[in-house]
Amino acid sequence: MNKKEVFMKRAINQANKAYNKLEVPVGAIIVKDDKIIARAYNQKEGKKDATKHAEIIAIQKASKKLQSWRLLDCEMYVTLEPCSMCAGAIIQSRIKKVYIGAMDEKTGSCGSVFNLFKDYKFNHHVEVEYNVCQTECEEILKEFFKMIRKNKKAKNKLDSSII
Amino acid sequence: MNKKEVFMKRAINQANKAYNKLEVPVGAIIVKDDKIIARAYNQKEGKKDATKHAEIIAIQKASKKLQSWRLLDCEMYVTLEPCSMCAGAIIQSRIKKVYIGAMDEKTGSCGSVFNLFKDYKFNHHVEVEYNVCQTECEEILKEFFKMIRKNKKAKNKLDSSII
Repeated sequence: MNKKEVFMKRAINQANKAYNKLEVPVGAIIVKDDKIIARAYNQKEGKKDATKHAEIIAIQKASKKLQSWRLLDCEMYVTLEPCSMCAGAIIQSRIKKVYIGAMDEKTGSCGSVFNLFKDYKFNHHVEVEYNVCQTECEEILKEFFKMIRKNKKAKNKLDSSII
Repeated sequence: MNKKEVFMKRAINQANKAYNKLEVPVGAIIVKDDKIIARAYNQKEGKKDATKHAEIIAIQKASKKLQSWRLLDCEMYVTLEPCSMCAGAIIQSRIKKVYIGAMDEKTGSCGSVFNLFKDYKFNHHVEVEYNVCQTECEEILKEFFKMIRKNKKAKNKLDSSII
């Protein structure tokens, strides 16, 4: 495995934590100087808060760790393409580069529905690399929704809340 | 004053709190059934966290109050046009309508740089009304940046952090 894959596996570990808590399995980590400074998974259902996507929680943790809102020279590995809220937060926090696993055709804002990092001129440019451990990142989502369809209790919990 | 103006004044009160703490003065409130359920102001500098925009904090407070991530039938009053992060959070949390004071030509994502609520098809439609107490909302921002230019200490604190 190359370095990118090693880090994405750590993000996948986070996605698995979400899976086990019946949250849509998305995980994110933030790396600086080849060290992981923040780990997070989607907690929207458990925290009853739509802002609790993995990326937002990871940014908040990294900011706390660095004691700065500027996450300069930081890279994020995320198992699913960020939505507009999360892509916006990545720009706001000046993250340098984002590595994405699976794409999200419905709400993905880094190339699918649109590309917030490229289509518009903001005051910070974010580099992106796609398809890092893509198959594995897709599989965990497919497995999750398959399980949800079979499991009525889990389905009721999630209701129409798919991110 | 009509109802919209009364509520926007409450958001302006929040923006003034930010001003007094040397934060870019943006305030937001969330209203449900004509009652304010959340009040917030920009705390990006103080909290050292780029996600701490007024809108995000207001959404988090309202979610906690309602014990739900779905802010159905809720309306937000915000003194400055939301950025892409905040516009995305408004969609994610299913807020029904947003009333905007001043526009933000640089990062505004509800009509200025682009319109996240209209340009793309997401699974939730957000209504928008512009120019509510626009002059007053603009004035507080103008005053703030004028004060910042004069005040070196405040300028150093803010550095290049303008939202």
